[in-house]
Amino acid sequence: MANPVVPSSGVLSPLGLDAVRLSPGFWGDRVRLNHEVTIAHCQDWMEREGWIGNFRDPARRRGREFSDSEIYKLLEAMAWADHPALPELAETVARAQEGDGYLNTRWSGNRYADLEWGHELYCYGHLIQAGVARLRMHGEDTLTEVARKAADHVCRRFMDTAETCGHPEVEMALVELYRATGAERYLEMARRFVERRGLPSLGEIPFGRGYFQDDVPVRQAQVFRGHAVRALYLACGAVDVAVETGDEPLLKAIEQQWERTVARRTHLTGGMGSRHHGESFGEDFELPPDRAYSETCAGIASIMLAHRLLLATGEARYADLAERTMFNVLATGVALDGRSFFYANPLQVRVPAEPREGVNQAAEGGLRSPWFAVSCCPSNIARTFASLPAYFAAADAGGLRLHHYSPGQVRGGGMAVEVETGYPWSGGVRVRVLEGGGRLSLRVPAWAEGATLADAEVSGGYASLAVRAGQEVRLELPVRSRWTFPDRRADALRGTVAVERGPLVYCAESVADEPPLADVAVRLSPPAEVVSAHHDGVVELEADAVLAQPGPDGWPYTREPVTPAAARARVRLVPYHRWGNRGPATMRVWLPLAD
Amino acid sequence: MANPVVPSSGVLSPLGLDAVRLSPGFWGDRVRLNHEVTIAHCQDWMEREGWIGNFRDPARRRGREFSDSEIYKLLEAMAWADHPALPELAETVARAQEGDGYLNTRWSGNRYADLEWGHELYCYGHLIQAGVARLRMHGEDTLTEVARKAADHVCRRFMDTAETCGHPEVEMALVELYRATGAERYLEMARRFVERRGLPSLGEIPFGRGYFQDDVPVRQAQVFRGHAVRALYLACGAVDVAVETGDEPLLKAIEQQWERTVARRTHLTGGMGSRHHGESFGEDFELPPDRAYSETCAGIASIMLAHRLLLATGEARYADLAERTMFNVLATGVALDGRSFFYANPLQVRVPAEPREGVNQAAEGGLRSPWFAVSCCPSNIARTFASLPAYFAAADAGGLRLHHYSPGQVRGGGMAVEVETGYPWSGGVRVRVLEGGGRLSLRVPAWAEGATLADAEVSGGYASLAVRAGQEVRLELPVRSRWTFPDRRADALRGTVAVERGPLVYCAESVADEPPLADVAVRLSPPAEVVSAHHDGVVELEADAVLAQPGPDGWPYTREPVTPAAARARVRLVPYHRWGNRGPATMRVWLPLAD
Repeated sequence: MANPVVPSSGVLSPLGLDAVRLSPGFWGDRVRLNHEVTIAHCQDWMEREGWIGNFRDPARRRGREFSDSEIYKLLEAMAWADHPALPELAETVARAQEGDGYLNTRWSGNRYADLEWGHELYCYGHLIQAGVARLRMHGEDTLTEVARKAADHVCRRFMDTAETCGHPEVEMALVELYRATGAERYLEMARRFVERRGLPSLGEIPFGRGYFQDDVPVRQAQVFRGHAVRALYLACGAVDVAVETGDEPLLKAIEQQWERTVARRTHLTGGMGSRHHGESFGEDFELPPDRAYSETCAGIASIMLAHRLLLATGEARYADLAERTMFNVLATGVALDGRSFFYANPLQVRVPAEPREGVNQAAEGGLRSPWFAVSCCPSNIARTFASLPAYFAAADAGGLRLHHYSPGQVRGGGMAVEVETGYPWSGGVRVRVLEGGGRLSLRVPAWAEGATLADAEVSGGYASLAVRAGQEVRLELPVRSRWTFPDRRADALRGTVAVERGPLVYCAESVADEPPLADVAVRLSPPAEVVSAHHDGVVELEADAVLAQPGPDGWPYTREPVTPAAARARVRLVPYHRWGNRGPATMRVWLPLAD
Repeated sequence: MANPVVPSSGVLSPLGLDAVRLSPGFWGDRVRLNHEVTIAHCQDWMEREGWIGNFRDPARRRGREFSDSEIYKLLEAMAWADHPALPELAETVARAQEGDGYLNTRWSGNRYADLEWGHELYCYGHLIQAGVARLRMHGEDTLTEVARKAADHVCRRFMDTAETCGHPEVEMALVELYRATGAERYLEMARRFVERRGLPSLGEIPFGRGYFQDDVPVRQAQVFRGHAVRALYLACGAVDVAVETGDEPLLKAIEQQWERTVARRTHLTGGMGSRHHGESFGEDFELPPDRAYSETCAGIASIMLAHRLLLATGEARYADLAERTMFNVLATGVALDGRSFFYANPLQVRVPAEPREGVNQAAEGGLRSPWFAVSCCPSNIARTFASLPAYFAAADAGGLRLHHYSPGQVRGGGMAVEVETGYPWSGGVRVRVLEGGGRLSLRVPAWAEGATLADAEVSGGYASLAVRAGQEVRLELPVRSRWTFPDRRADALRGTVAVERGPLVYCAESVADEPPLADVAVRLSPPAEVVSAHHDGVVELEADAVLAQPGPDGWPYTREPVTPAAARARVRLVPYHRWGNRGPATMRVWLPLAD
């Protein structure tokens, strides 16, 4: 089946990418943009930076130690998109592979000399995922052969050692290769990598072993911690191993870690990671909007994890978080032109970024960049959009489930349906059954209080009804702006409020000579109102606010609170995923409350 | 004169270390602890880690590229303290110096190959400061000769290039060597290093040029930025150059940068630096208590800068910030046993640190460490305490000024005085004139509303009166607990309040099974009260509070604010500088307000 994740058991069964067609709309447009622009953009930059050239001539190698992985993520994107450039690029990669399957342009001749930072197994992971994608979309070819040879090399080299990789990723790739080929050694290798971790299996590093989740065995951990992408990729691999080996306690452990992480370590956008230092989660309730790291790749990894947990358990809360993260991290990570990207996705920017040309040397930035010195995010976006339909629907025991809403067609669970909707800008979803029938289940997001399905009120979770060919059902989600308050323990958010509308987080954005956001505070009544519905459906909001007079500066800590004179004002709110498309700007999601 | 900073002009003239005797008391005890314990502790660890051994056998070098500087800071401490171990250690250093004056255990044979990160000029800076200290305390010897040879080498090598060092420090050292020797080439070299910076004079690095203040010329900058210690050391050098060359615009530029930094980028403790990433300042009003970096060395650098600006201008605001930083960063940076240290000084710690043995590989830590992989702070503390009397008093045109209050004797400005005080625990300061007379000026801190001198009310700044031998005057500072509110623009502090008493910042600290601070909120009325005055004078406070019932976890962002049931409680507050001396603890300076 053409899908990145095909478990052999679980409450839900995935559908093939070909079974879900996303028509023009919020997601369909972005998938097309990815196919038409982003994939080629990534390939161009990888050529320009020499990362593809590394496979041709490793002696003149350029880029960081993990740059091979970018080519593999691009190959995965090309495989899902059935892109014509794949065979030639795969040949280039294949020629660099050594006889025993070893393949790395950085460490050849000095294999596995630095498992903490070398990223060799991490790179194989992405290579194997590309191979699986190719196998499922196309069948055996050069790329699938390279991937299998690499996987076999890994099994021979690491099956009976106590070693693992500083960056998890190969675990889920090996499980998927097992699923695609039936060869049990891949599953066993993945299982061992998961179980070794935290014994510990790696050396000490200045960040501490928590950075690469080698501080505690996976099944004993309480929460996701350390480097966010590493933590979430590891959790994906652990879920995959648990599902394939029937290891209920391991699955339960990840579910509980996810639960605490979502309750205490997740930004309103769904973004994960609160520290630039170590690109890490931070402690419970450490949720600074300004220094939120919320790496685009961590958002993608969280979507990948939620999807696995959703397939295993059928619980709507996983799709809820995936949707939040898709609309507010994934869609934010790439510009409307498909050619520039955010690495970090903070929820507040105090100082407009200075425009710059070329490669961004840092992860920071209030403007999207075409490429980064560490450019994991663009190719991760490319492979995610190339396989995006995989996340939208699944079959369950009784029929079809729709997790996310886009205009298009879905075939699976004994029926074919057509969906019409203006979601996320409006809340009506019309589903017409074209063929077959059975139980149709539609996800009602947790925020959608007062939703109705076929005129009957439904609450959060999946709302189901029996359907037959020709029938049309209508889900009404109450897409209206709402205030959202933070937990009292989220210190950095105290005294603020955010605005959401449907699945979208909104933000105040100020470009050029618009009023400075540092002096704005909002008034709760009346609520934010729609002020502009663009021709493409985009909805902007406006809220009642006060604009303080900036006073003279001095020692900022005083005996009495200083409350400067303030004038009534309005603050315009745009969907968070659209910020930063109008040039250098200040921005904030969490708005101080007036009084 | 035996003082680290001896400008040839300025509103104030420094006194020699021998002219200020600190008797037992808050500071006198710490100076003695430094002489008796900390200096030897630093030497022991530098031997143990091999950093002294690097001078004996560079071929088996250990430690980071800047480790030579630690030995030099220790030598400076030993020079001020007239420590008997100095001559032998100086001989060890001297033997590693090359014929032309070059001296570096890391880069010998590959000189100045990496000015961005090599730290060679930075190391010379500390060597030269040690040499100046020795010269002023003792006269010419091996150490002073090594320092002069190094300085002459620097002048020959760099006078006519456009280069500079990634880490400022050598600038102020060269000016001081000029002051101590009269050789103008040192001043000219320092001037050129200051003027070159920001043209730019260094290469691009991933942190960006702002990291080492090479983004903008010194005199054009608006605020301190980038790596906090680098920024503050550079500002010290710029002030020194400005004072010696009569460059008023340069002095004014630094004063304005200081002003904005104090108004917008300084923690309540006086600590500077808000980001672990790049050890940097962060933006205006980016003042997170939990991730406050507030490196001990940045606190010391800020004290050094404030002292220079105070000497140049005579303005009390500089002494105010120095005092705040001395009591709340410098005194916090070292444990009561003199053998363990904080590198970062956050204002909130959510999770108690896990005790660990030996070298701390990171800067983080809710427990003080005996040594660090990057161990700049312990030796910086050692040299600062060894020269601490330099900061306490100065002569002005009419007589004597006292900036800080400690029991002891001061001789200068035409008089000798004896001071008796229980400061900072109580606010009475009795000054008896032993000899001479003239105008005696006593600093009244900005917080000291209602202070009296000789029973007359005095306001912030210096309060003066004419005195003669035998006279006794009494300053009364209103040392009482007070609430302190943050600027509305300090987002991370919104809805909180802090408690101060005299010059001390207080914090809630919770060890072992004391109530968790995450659930505490304070009530403003009544004010915090003294609950315990220890035999050594230490005052603890207690405030009225509520303790919330922790509720069940879930998605932490809700439609209505969640206000859990709460019980009345009391929260105990300890001086911030004493936190972390009772074992692993949670801590917070900024306390959420109830309601």
